[in-house]
This record gives sequence, structure tokens and C-alpha cells, in this order.
Amino acid sequence: MKAVVYHGARDFRYEDAADPALESPGDALVRVTRSAICGSDLHLWNGLPIPDRGFAVGHEFVGVVEAVGAGVQSVRRGDRVFASCTLGCGTCESCRRGLMSGCAVTTAGGTRNNVFGFSAAYAGGQAEAVRVPFADANLFPIPEALSDEQALFLTDILPTADMACELAAVEPGDRVVVIGSGPVGSLVQSCARVRGAARVIAVDLDDARLLRAQERGCEVVHPGRENLAERVLELSDGRGADAVIEAVGRPELVSAALGLLRAGGRLAVVGVLFAPVEIPWALVFMKNLTLRSGLVNPQRHVSRLIPLVEQGRLDPTELITHRLPLSEAAKGYEIFAERRDGVLKVVLQP
Amino acid sequence: MKAVVYHGARDFRYEDAADPALESPGDALVRVTRSAICGSDLHLWNGLPIPDRGFAVGHEFVGVVEAVGAGVQSVRRGDRVFASCTLGCGTCESCRRGLMSGCAVTTAGGTRNNVFGFSAAYAGGQAEAVRVPFADANLFPIPEALSDEQALFLTDILPTADMACELAAVEPGDRVVVIGSGPVGSLVQSCARVRGAARVIAVDLDDARLLRAQERGCEVVHPGRENLAERVLELSDGRGADAVIEAVGRPELVSAALGLLRAGGRLAVVGVLFAPVEIPWALVFMKNLTLRSGLVNPQRHVSRLIPLVEQGRLDPTELITHRLPLSEAAKGYEIFAERRDGVLKVVLQP
Amino acid sequence: MKAVVYHGARDFRYEDAADPALESPGDALVRVTRSAICGSDLHLWNGLPIPDRGFAVGHEFVGVVEAVGAGVQSVRRGDRVFASCTLGCGTCESCRRGLMSGCAVTTAGGTRNNVFGFSAAYAGGQAEAVRVPFADANLFPIPEALSDEQALFLTDILPTADMACELAAVEPGDRVVVIGSGPVGSLVQSCARVRGAARVIAVDLDDARLLRAQERGCEVVHPGRENLAERVLELSDGRGADAVIEAVGRPELVSAALGLLRAGGRLAVVGVLFAPVEIPWALVFMKNLTLRSGLVNPQRHVSRLIPLVEQGRLDPTELITHRLPLSEAAKGYEIFAERRDGVLKVVLQP
Amino acid sequence: MKAVVYHGARDFRYEDAADPALESPGDALVRVTRSAICGSDLHLWNGLPIPDRGFAVGHEFVGVVEAVGAGVQSVRRGDRVFASCTLGCGTCESCRRGLMSGCAVTTAGGTRNNVFGFSAAYAGGQAEAVRVPFADANLFPIPEALSDEQALFLTDILPTADMACELAAVEPGDRVVVIGSGPVGSLVQSCARVRGAARVIAVDLDDARLLRAQERGCEVVHPGRENLAERVLELSDGRGADAVIEAVGRPELVSAALGLLRAGGRLAVVGVLFAPVEIPWALVFMKNLTLRSGLVNPQRHVSRLIPLVEQGRLDPTELITHRLPLSEAAKGYEIFAERRDGVLKVVLQP
Repeated sequence: MKAVVYHGARDFRYEDAADPALESPGDALVRVTRSAICGSDLHLWNGLPIPDRGFAVGHEFVGVVEAVGAGVQSVRRGDRVFASCTLGCGTCESCRRGLMSGCAVTTAGGTRNNVFGFSAAYAGGQAEAVRVPFADANLFPIPEALSDEQALFLTDILPTADMACELAAVEPGDRVVVIGSGPVGSLVQSCARVRGAARVIAVDLDDARLLRAQERGCEVVHPGRENLAERVLELSDGRGADAVIEAVGRPELVSAALGLLRAGGRLAVVGVLFAPVEIPWALVFMKNLTLRSGLVNPQRHVSRLIPLVEQGRLDPTELITHRLPLSEAAKGYEIFAERRDGVLKVVLQP
Repeated sequence: MKAVVYHGARDFRYEDAADPALESPGDALVRVTRSAICGSDLHLWNGLPIPDRGFAVGHEFVGVVEAVGAGVQSVRRGDRVFASCTLGCGTCESCRRGLMSGCAVTTAGGTRNNVFGFSAAYAGGQAEAVRVPFADANLFPIPEALSDEQALFLTDILPTADMACELAAVEPGDRVVVIGSGPVGSLVQSCARVRGAARVIAVDLDDARLLRAQERGCEVVHPGRENLAERVLELSDGRGADAVIEAVGRPELVSAALGLLRAGGRLAVVGVLFAPVEIPWALVFMKNLTLRSGLVNPQRHVSRLIPLVEQGRLDPTELITHRLPLSEAAKGYEIFAERRDGVLKVVLQP
Repeated sequence: MKAVVYHGARDFRYEDAADPALESPGDALVRVTRSAICGSDLHLWNGLPIPDRGFAVGHEFVGVVEAVGAGVQSVRRGDRVFASCTLGCGTCESCRRGLMSGCAVTTAGGTRNNVFGFSAAYAGGQAEAVRVPFADANLFPIPEALSDEQALFLTDILPTADMACELAAVEPGDRVVVIGSGPVGSLVQSCARVRGAARVIAVDLDDARLLRAQERGCEVVHPGRENLAERVLELSDGRGADAVIEAVGRPELVSAALGLLRAGGRLAVVGVLFAPVEIPWALVFMKNLTLRSGLVNPQRHVSRLIPLVEQGRLDPTELITHRLPLSEAAKGYEIFAERRDGVLKVVLQP
Repeated sequence: MKAVVYHGARDFRYEDAADPALESPGDALVRVTRSAICGSDLHLWNGLPIPDRGFAVGHEFVGVVEAVGAGVQSVRRGDRVFASCTLGCGTCESCRRGLMSGCAVTTAGGTRNNVFGFSAAYAGGQAEAVRVPFADANLFPIPEALSDEQALFLTDILPTADMACELAAVEPGDRVVVIGSGPVGSLVQSCARVRGAARVIAVDLDDARLLRAQERGCEVVHPGRENLAERVLELSDGRGADAVIEAVGRPELVSAALGLLRAGGRLAVVGVLFAPVEIPWALVFMKNLTLRSGLVNPQRHVSRLIPLVEQGRLDPTELITHRLPLSEAAKGYEIFAERRDGVLKVVLQP
């Protein structure tokens, strides 16, 4: 088959790769119909240090089941399916808690982590086909009412946005600040509105992204031109934000976010961030704050998100700015990495 | 002053009444600018047996503070205010829990209950002026951005609708059935949508009310013409409703509601209901159901509702169908009791 | 193999039965080492109308895995295991929510319900061996530190007791009334204490059971000799109970329980009860009460219960009053049904 | 009257001070019967920079009401009472949420914070008498069954310990690590056990404190002699702690605590800590962690703690190692600051 294969930073090649095969009774093979480039893929593109080479990248993909192992009970050949970006075994204690990101089985063995497309252990879905281990835990049928492109967002970033709202405990009536108006930040804005936020305040340095946020019903703040803390106070009757969601992944933005919160406020960080963060703890202490982050576990979110997408209350496909054949994946990465052409989401078609 | 005084069933008279006065340091006097007739007032109108006579009725009112006792700290003369329909002392253990409906102080002494306008102990607000005991607990300033008529809904039925969603644990993505599309049911529909319900299914026998529900974005079911249980299954992909809210107050509707729920579903009853209800317990047991009801405690809801009304995400004034001078209150009661002229909410102006 | 086979009310025969075999890749075969008679088995003993005949009864059992299908990943031959009394497929939407009792797969097909030992579909564990369908969802390894007899309580009644506390939202400092001091009621008492109840008030008509409750640290009330409602008020500083748990299964006790609760109180019913219940709704409404019930889903409880049993904070084996060979199961049923010899729990050994 | 008056670091003088008087209708005067020295008082003793001089210190005190303003409704002359260490107005939005630490009224005006005994605005209770503003919000009657010394712990550190468990979401069955076994840490150990922790792991460098922790039922670890992370894994079946509570207040301990948690774990910091903390964010992200801290709001905790102390399930007076006359307060501070004589809690008697 053809796949987008990792050979190092900025060296992703569309080339022949070994056809995936069933290796365990719990496996499924999926012929990919659509995949997408995620912000966290850019970390790999930009040189995240990892040991492996030669595997297919990509953790956002949908397709059709081609074959299943003897033990698979929830999907069968011919089903349209989407995958969870994070892989769990489905039966260890952590998976039973709904935390596949803490799965004892799939994180074992020295691989970087249990996400598709970051190591040879779990080859990714920017490929014509992909093996999905523990398919009962990691594959989901696509309801008839949903298109492949809608389902593509259920693999990662729409659940991530919903998780962000859950981590930040967004409640009806809240004033919510969303830092970053890229693909994840944009969906966080939509999810916060769906959950009843009275005001969603979008923060970004890119005017085009702010304009789109405004069209989604957000108040917008450009921190290069306005004093963010003052604007948040104004927009919250002088109280401060009930919740702040950081969707960029920069240490200094996490620290600054704490200053925007009211007493009892909650900060969720869904920007990908591995660096240490210096936290002004006096604020956490004096204002009774909560800080949370995490890898997404899509299976906790999809049963609520599917009806919202079906009913049109959430429309993640509004983010798709580019559609390219899979063979031009590298071009898609360049566009996304350099933020060209108002890019928000690049979809790849095998 | 003039007031709408209770003399028995269907005998509410606009007449002279003693001017209210400060009786305790915690009291406030409020000059009423608007009051409204509530569905629960109809119980009084229709002959709810109570011992007292000669008191002003009405528990939904807003106005301007005319005087406060020495102990009042949260409002002052001249403030525009709305009152909580349910009276608490604010400092007993139950009030500290946010359950003013269980207040040890205001429910003592044999009065029917601790709601304005149901006894001589707490004369009501369908009057030119009213004494508000424990004003720090029971009066709230009206924010500048809100009109008196918007605030009028914060005294009871908008908090009741929000409580209904809380009791039924309405979550984003839920399919929610609302039985009854009167004033409370209509606001429950709106609150459920604001909280992210994927589908709100409105049930009523009145086509005009169903039409309005449809305009609010609801699916509608007329149980006289359609099989309700079947329609709910269809509208929930065969699963059953996540939550049902009964907003009528009939025992047989409560029993029937349990049949509409999926395993793990929740029923909230906000229709006023004092009669016994026969519960088909096998359903509660086999389907792991939850049943809840309660008197509203507006102070638990207003800090979230105010920003939602301010931002236009909730517009309760859409329900106002009639505005009458206070002197014509009895006529308002008749219209409302007989459901004339598409009535949903009657507002009275002193 | 030998098994305790259902032939009708009070007609359970120890006799030859077909050896169970693997039927699906997700199945496991378990050689039973201990099983127990549950209060809900008595319903079958006493004539619960069911269509099937000739199947092995019993849903509380532990044993050793003898064989697994190709798809089973969480247990293997030789593992000591306990089963969940309630069977789920593990992958449908309801199972993903943790509600195996609402499983779309195992409740399909007209069987009474998805519990072992109530139909031919899911033959029970009062047998030398048993087939466990969907073993990844329904079998759990027994930690080395736990004896078979300790694990036997994890199959049903200890999770049921923990669920009762969860349904009744038992919180630290609560005054909790437990109606019924049989096997489930006794464990509810212990679980409520472990969760920090300040007072557990045990109610029963059997003095021997009350004595044992007292030894567990409970206050005890014999409603034949004392006024229950008055005693509960006394023992809760005049407030009423925060939570009441009904562990008998009688409609009149459910109704009466509501009178014992404070405003905002919670009632959980874990007594098996299929009959309609007349609820004095005025209490539910005026006191903001919550009513819940349900079939247990052990997998939601075992990860918390195992460490508590390991550390000796819960000791369910204190309930074992009788140990009999499996061949004398019918005698065990008689003793339990007639409450002879201070019986609380009868354990059967193949 | 006599009081312990602040004149600077290590300069607390027992001397004449102006008698407190009622200043507002919401005030109460309390004649102090017992006060205690808190760990956070040591920050003042050790030179915390503050602008004021000449005020009485101390925020843990109980006494008898001597006089109340006209507006006070919940206590009266002669009542035995304890105070909340954190002062709220009781009626602003933040106080209504239960966050008196975020009170808009009592934190206004440039005082350091809204805790008794840290500024001239709210003189403290290491004095013969004290003015308690907003008495309805900040004073609580002592139930007859409780001694003054038991109630003394309800003013701050027992609620702080309970809050710690709440912030760390301690659940039945959890393995909980408590870093620091001083007064607050010791009560956290007890509260975690009361909430059903299966294992409480006490960490300290002081063997005498560890011995006392062991007597409370804790596992103990001396990190100078043992590898803490390895021990925590051993004591949690290789999983890591469900919750860690830092009760010392050192940045490096907060950072290190994150390494002890399982995926989905929660960290609460109740050690007083104003310095920045460097957080290894990769752990927070990859393990889905939660970090929380806060000033205590005793009124949220006392209704649950009082019955637990009454019933002997919590006995905070076990911590009292020293009782001194108020005139010897400075000596008490020295003993506590230098950790002499196995000191845990010093009680002062006017």
C-alpha cells in the first residue's frame, strides 16, 4: 500500500509501505477513506525527538472495515468506522475508568505513547490502510447520518474540545476565555457555547482567525492591541473569567491565564505542552483555582458529540480549509506548519 | 395601599390593604413595579385549602427598595430588585446548603409554606408594596442591563426551569422530553437547549403551544394523535430519552414518563403535584432510574441565569402574552385559568 | 458435570447437567470453587414466574479459568476469577457508560434479564462449571491477597451495597438510615461507615440481626417497639436523615422511608422490588427529595472495593453463617428462605 | 483588654489593647475562651511582610457572644461560638457560591487578605475579646456535645483538612499520599481515612510525627531513608497514588508530588505557599492530572464535620500538645516555630 512515512523532521514521504495485517484476534484492518493533519502532528514534523523511523504517520482517520480478528465483536467487515486517536486495551483498570491514555497495556514496551502514528508500534492512518489493535475499544461505527468528514473530527479534536470544557468545568452562564483560535481553539469555542457559556472570549494574534471566531458568536481580543486582563474584567462584570482554556501550548500563556480567573476559577490546558511551566502559586492558593490537562480519550465523548453533530448543533467541518490527495500530504504539512492561505484543517484523501 | 387580596377560591379582590412596614432589622420594603401570575397561583385560585384569608397574593414580583432595616447589607433604598419566591432566613443549616425550601426558620409556625402570597405570614407581591423578610437572603439587585420584565422571570419560573434541567441532569448531547408546554415547560425547553441538549422533544395537547415549541427549535409530539413512546424511541435512535421533565403536575404523566427513559435515565417533576403517584417500580429498578422533584431556590440559579438573559441566550419575555393593570388582576386570573387567547404569562402593573 | 438445576418453585435439584463449552471467541469457561445464595435467588425459589426450566441457578460465584476463546484478552487459563452477576457485552453504548444492566446485546432476545442463573441463556454458577460470555467484560482476576470467599462478595452484594451508598449519595458526616439488616443491609451499613457516615441507623424486626448491626457500630431501631420517625429525628439533631437506603424490597417501606428524610435527602432502594409503589409525592416536592434504584454493575465498584477488602476496612466474610456442599444446595435455600439458625449468607462448595 | 499584639517579626507582645466594640449592625463581640496558634501564624512570626502594626493576631478562636448588632440573627448573647478564620460578607456573589475567600467586600480596601489577625482591619482572636464582622456569615454556635477545644479545630485546620480531601477528590478505596505530618497533615490523614481511603501514606522527615501517623493507621515513609516514589508504587499495587495532598508548602514538594500520581490522579496543596512553582507539565498532560489549592471556607465544611467530631469519628484534640495562658503566647510561638517538645498544636487560654 501507499502511506505517508516518517523519515525525520520535515521528511514525510508518500511511498510504498508493507500492507498491514491482522496480528491478534482483537485487531481490525481499516481501509482509510479520509485522514487529517492535526496540530500535534506538527510536533513530529518540526522535529520532536523520537527513536523510530519508517512508520506511517497520522492519528485522525476514518474508513471502512476490511477484516476483523476472531475476537472482535463490535464492528464487522464493511462497517464505516472512525478510530480513537489514543489507543487503549479496553480492559485494564485504567481503561475501565475511561482513561485509555493511562492504559497499562498499550503504553508498555518503551514506545513514546499510545497514539497512532508516533511509533512503529502503532502505525498511523495517513495511509491507504491501517491496523487497529483492540478494535472493540478503539473503533466506532459511523452513524448513517454522519459524513466521513464529520466523523473525522470525532477521532481527536472535537473530543479534545469537549474534554477541554469538561476539564474547565464549563457551566451554563459562564464567561469562558479561549486562548488560541486554531483548529482546537475554534472547536472549544463552539463546545463552550453548546454547553451554555454566556460569553466566549476568543484570544488570538491572527485577525483572520479572530474574524471567524466572531462569526461563531465570540467576543474577540487581540492581545497585541488590547490589554487582555482588562478586557476580560470588562466582559465579566468585573469578576474575572469562570474558566480559561489554553489551546496553544506555551508555558507563558498558561502562567498568564491564571491571572484572568475569578476566585474559584478553572484552567484547562489542551495546547500540547511538554515543557515545564512556572506557576504563580500565590494566585492558585489565594483564588482557589483548579488546573487540569490531559490526553484525550475520545470514547468518553463521542456518545454525546454524535447527536450534537447529527442535529447540526456542532459543525466541525466548517474548519476544513484544504482538501488534498494523500500523495500530497507533505505539501499539506507545509501549508499547515507555515499557516498559509488561512489554513485551519487539511484533509487528505487516499 | 392597594393589593390583590385573597378571600377564597376565585375571589381575589383588588382593594385597600394595610401598608407594609419594617418589622425586623433584616426586612426591606419594596415598591412593586411589576408582578406576574404563576401557574402555582392557580392552585390558590382554584381552591387549594388554606387557613388564612385577607392577605395579598403573588410570589413573582420586582420593584424598587423603599426602606431597609438596620441589618440589611446587600441592598439599599432606590435599588431595583427582584425577590426570591421561596423565603429563607439565609443562615440556618438548610439555607447554608442552598435549600431555602427547607429553612428551619421560615417554615416554622404552621404556615402552609415559605412562599410569598400563600399566607398572612408572608403577604405577596400582587400589591403596590411588599415587606421582604430576611432581605439579604431574598432580594437581589437587578443588573442595569436587565429590564424589570426580564427580571420578573428570575423570581420563580426561569430558576424553576433551570432547576428542572439540574434535577434531570441534562447534559450536552442529551435527548430530553419535556411534558407540558405551558410557561414552565417552555422555559425548560429553552434551558435544555442552552445546556446543550441535542434534541428537545416538546409534548402537549395544545397545537398553538406546540407551534411555539417548534419555533424554539423543539421536536413536537401531540400524544392525542401520536404514540409518544414510539416517537421518543424514533427521535433517540431507539435508545429512549436521557431525561424527561414533567411540567404539568399530573400523577399519571409522572408514571408514564418512566417508560420513556433509557437505562440510567432521569426524571424531574416540576409540575406542582401534591397527590400520591403510583410508580411502576420494576422500571426504576431494572433501568437504574432517578426521580427528583422540589421547590425552587432561585438564589442557586440566578448568578448563572443573569448573564444568559443579558446575552440574549435566554429570552423569557417571549412568554408574556398579556399585560394588565394590577386592578384587573382577577381578569388576568380568569384568562390564565381558562387558557384564553393563547395565554402563557400575564404581567400585572400597579 | 453436576449443577443445581431449576425445575420450578422450591424444586432445585442437584443433578447432572450438560458440560458448558466455549460458544463464542469472547467466552471463558470457569471451574467453580465457591458459590453463594443471594436474596434475589429466593425470588426464584419462591416462584418468580419465568418461562425457562432446566438451567443451573446462581449468580454469585468464583472459580478458576479453564479455557478461553480466541478473543479473550484480560484473563487466561489458570487465573482465579470472580464474575459479575450482571452480564454485559462490554462494548455497546450502555456498557461503555458503565450500565451493563442496560446492555443492548445481553438483554436482547426475550430472556428475563441479563443476570446469570435466571434463564437458559445465561446458566448460573451453582454448578461445577459455567460458561461466561463476554469474559473481558464480566470476569475479573482475584488479587493474590484476597481469598475466594472474600472475592465471592465482589460478584454482587458488596457492589450492591456500595451502589446503594452511591445512589443515596452518602457523604462524610451524614446520618444514614438502613432499612433491613439482612445480607445486603449489613454490607450497606459497613459501606456507609467506610464512606464517613457519622451515624448509621439500622432498622430491622429481628433482634439477632440488630445485635450484629450494633456490633458493626450502628445505632439500632426496632420499629415494632419504637417509633422509627421519632428515633431518626432524635439521632439527627431534629433534622431528619440525609439518606435512607431500603434493603428489604417492600412497597410500604419505600413510601415510609420518604418521611424520614430531611429536605434535600436521598432515598436509594436496593431491596428487590417489582411491584408498584405509591409515593407520597407532596413530600418529594416540598422536601426536594431524590429517589433511585437499580441493578448493580459490579465492574463500576470493584476497583474501589478490592483495596478496601485487602486492607481489612471491609470484611464481608463476617456474614457467612453456613457452608454446605453444593449437593446440599436445596437445604441451603430452605434455611435461607425460612431464616433459620441466624442465617445471613450460605456458601456452597462444589 | 489584653491581647497578643503584632509589632513585627518575632515581636508579638501580650499587652493592653483597645476594647473591641460593635461598629456595624452585623457585628458581634466575642469573649474568647480558647485560641490556638496555626502554622500560617508562623509566617507572620517569621517575617511575612505586611504593612500594619499594633493589631491582635490569631485566627483560630472560640468564645462566648457578649453582644450583637441589630442585624445579627443567627447568634445571640451568651451563645458559645466558633469563628471562621476566613471572613466573608455572606451576601456577595462569591460568598453565595461558598467562596468567602473571594468575597468582594472583605477583600476590598487594600488589606492583605480577609483572615482574622493579619491586619488592623480584622484584629485577631489571640485576645480577650474580638469583634466579628458579618457575624451571620462568620460565627457558628457550638453544639452542646462539643467542647470548646474540639470546636477550636473547626475554625480552620479541620475544615482545611476536609477541604484538602475534597480538592484531591479522595474517594473510598483510594491510596492517598499525605506529604507532611504536622497539624494539618495529621488531620488530613484522619479525614482521608474517614472518607474511606484504603491506604493513607504519611510522609515526613520527623520520626516522632511518623510514629503518631502510624498510630492513626497510616503507612509511613521517611523520604530521607526510603525512595518515596518506589514505596508509593509498592503500596498501590504498582499503579501510583490516586491522590496526593501536600501539607508543607514547599515548591519542590509540589513538583515532586506529581510524579507519585497515577493517570487521572489529583494533587491538592494545602501547605501555605506564595512562591512560584515549576510544574513538570509533561506529567500533567500525559497523565491527565488535576492540581488544586485554596484558602479554606470553613462554613462549607462544618455541617459535615460537627457530627463526625460528635460521634468520635474524628478527634482533633489528639493534636494538642501544649496548653499555655494567653500571656505566654510568645513562648508558644517559639516552641512551635522551633518544633520543640514534639509540639503539634499550642492552645492559649485568656
